[in-house]
Amino acid sequence: MDSRLATAARVAGIAPFHVMEVQTAARALEAAGRSVVHMEIGEPDFPTPPAVLEAARAALAGGGIYYTSALGLPELRRAIARHYGERYGADVDPERVIVTAGSSAALLLVMALLVDRDDEILLADPGYPCNRHFVRVLEGAPVGIPVGPERGYQLSADLVDARWSARTRGVLIASPSNPTGTMVAPGAMRDIARAVAARGGQLVVDEIYLGLAYEGEPRSVLSFADDAFVVSSFSKYFNMTGWRLGWIVAPRRHVRDLEKLAQNLYISPATVSQRAALACFRPDTLALLEERRRAFRERRDFLVPALRELGFGVPVMPGGGFFVYADCSRFSRDSLAFCRDVLERTGVAITPGVDFGEHRAAEHVRFSYTIALDKLREGVARLRGALVPA
Amino acid sequence: MDSRLATAARVAGIAPFHVMEVQTAARALEAAGRSVVHMEIGEPDFPTPPAVLEAARAALAGGGIYYTSALGLPELRRAIARHYGERYGADVDPERVIVTAGSSAALLLVMALLVDRDDEILLADPGYPCNRHFVRVLEGAPVGIPVGPERGYQLSADLVDARWSARTRGVLIASPSNPTGTMVAPGAMRDIARAVAARGGQLVVDEIYLGLAYEGEPRSVLSFADDAFVVSSFSKYFNMTGWRLGWIVAPRRHVRDLEKLAQNLYISPATVSQRAALACFRPDTLALLEERRRAFRERRDFLVPALRELGFGVPVMPGGGFFVYADCSRFSRDSLAFCRDVLERTGVAITPGVDFGEHRAAEHVRFSYTIALDKLREGVARLRGALVPA
Repeated sequence: MDSRLATAARVAGIAPFHVMEVQTAARALEAAGRSVVHMEIGEPDFPTPPAVLEAARAALAGGGIYYTSALGLPELRRAIARHYGERYGADVDPERVIVTAGSSAALLLVMALLVDRDDEILLADPGYPCNRHFVRVLEGAPVGIPVGPERGYQLSADLVDARWSARTRGVLIASPSNPTGTMVAPGAMRDIARAVAARGGQLVVDEIYLGLAYEGEPRSVLSFADDAFVVSSFSKYFNMTGWRLGWIVAPRRHVRDLEKLAQNLYISPATVSQRAALACFRPDTLALLEERRRAFRERRDFLVPALRELGFGVPVMPGGGFFVYADCSRFSRDSLAFCRDVLERTGVAITPGVDFGEHRAAEHVRFSYTIALDKLREGVARLRGALVPA
Repeated sequence: MDSRLATAARVAGIAPFHVMEVQTAARALEAAGRSVVHMEIGEPDFPTPPAVLEAARAALAGGGIYYTSALGLPELRRAIARHYGERYGADVDPERVIVTAGSSAALLLVMALLVDRDDEILLADPGYPCNRHFVRVLEGAPVGIPVGPERGYQLSADLVDARWSARTRGVLIASPSNPTGTMVAPGAMRDIARAVAARGGQLVVDEIYLGLAYEGEPRSVLSFADDAFVVSSFSKYFNMTGWRLGWIVAPRRHVRDLEKLAQNLYISPATVSQRAALACFRPDTLALLEERRRAFRERRDFLVPALRELGFGVPVMPGGGFFVYADCSRFSRDSLAFCRDVLERTGVAITPGVDFGEHRAAEHVRFSYTIALDKLREGVARLRGALVPA
């Protein structure tokens, strides 16, 4: 082979997103005049809150759009820390908060800090594909542990214990999870934290969707495990996807090393985004976001029963986020072909389970409820007329 | 050792920036009422051009600050490609342009694409530390090749040939270089490209400072080597540091894999920054930037002779960027201690050579001319009264 074509081994180890194929086909349908109901999109439809836009405008008026500290603006680090106290009852020192270029940067930094060659990180399968890809990019070994509805699609202390090996460095939990929307209850999370600590490992919790929890009072792992790394984001609850802003809360002993890595790998997060994000924590913004959270819950409460009625299996009610992971085996055991076919016949775009791992992935699809209720109704109506049991 | 304190081996392999220590000490002096002349700063003092701020305001008014394509806005990719034609006479297909979250993301993506475990990338020593750190983070082996003034502080085809090993994967050239400001002439770059191609390797050229070249017509490697990867940035010439925006121009055969990596590692670059950057290529913005480039040249033309007169060695006139790499051995052979001492005695902040590699690093310091001419004069005057030959 021409060596100029060669790429690093990791490139082959990272699967492409099959949903991109669905999106390309959906765009082609739209270009041909068909209407498409987009239930494949992983970003909230709600626009950035007005006060955040206003804060961005004020930052532009100030004009000094220079680098910030690699750790982020001190006032934003303080605001994030305060939010943990006010929202989750967790006492977080602002010195432990590191503002990042999205949770993407947060995950890369944490994995760069922790993962040596062939070090294993345990993750739930199904799970968000990028999470395992960050481990792979840094030459670690992501270990997907199959979890089904009987476990709420989540890891537990016993699974962690059973799969721990001499090469295991830590565990990455997403709660709420993408694609399943399920959460790890505080008691179970505490058990996981203990199991990981007993092994001398590290617990990383992706709380990107924690703001969008629909049952009771959501708890951050930080309210009971100071030693966990938390990765979070302004994209989902705060509706700031295009701003590319997230954060890490790290154990204090690791902040200096994360700062060094952030200086080298990112310099600093985008300045306008940071100044804008300060407005996220204003009471009027939080009131608006709570309204939107209720809208998401309303969509979920419509969509899940509707999908069940259509014949999809949704054995666990998603507790947060904006996804439903649905068993489509009544219709197909080839979720990629199923998604193609559903799109072609009904104009409803959904994401094949194969994007989220290997465990029964071909028998599942992901529905997003990031579109308004009337569009969800339209999507369900189209499916009702078109689905045929296999 | 407590395993919870352990970090991946790469963390120890990445040196902290010593300039941070200088900056912390400088801030302490300022807090104590002393005036500091900042000649350590690596970002242009000029604010973001007004038309860019205006374009950002317009993007906010539009309100749809969502994710973009992982490759960036198509219109921005086209504008960057067109700029290569208009400015550098290089014919670049927009499909080869990948917009990134700063040149930081560009370098990470290219190294993630190319570098397998222990693969060597050849770089000049002295050089920008992050460049070698990106290689190390991805488990490659950066190989710093000592280069002095007799080689213009740059690699050449003969050095590449001499240091190529079975593990060498490619060469990373920065032209103009940080810290030396020196450039690789087109003929020499063509020879390097040929030498690398003959070995079946990859040439990556950091052209971050190419817009700030002061002699003749600067050439992009793309005007004669379609096979090179170019990494560039909106930070320096376009004065958009805090916006975190850069780009890659890649050989066409690698664009799909880079897209896959970008989707996984970044999702997309910041949307407001991308919309703002479209205004960089307006004639009025380019006229302003050319004015600022002439101001940088004027500063250089003052600073280099002034430093020589003070007794610093500047054997090669920097051809671009905004740095002077100066031999301080007449005063000290411990550049870190020298920087501390100069700051303490004169309030002039400069960067120790040890931040840029190992080759005679303790006998060099880096001066930035990212401050106005009157401040540069003030800095030189302070040094004149305080420097004592060792």
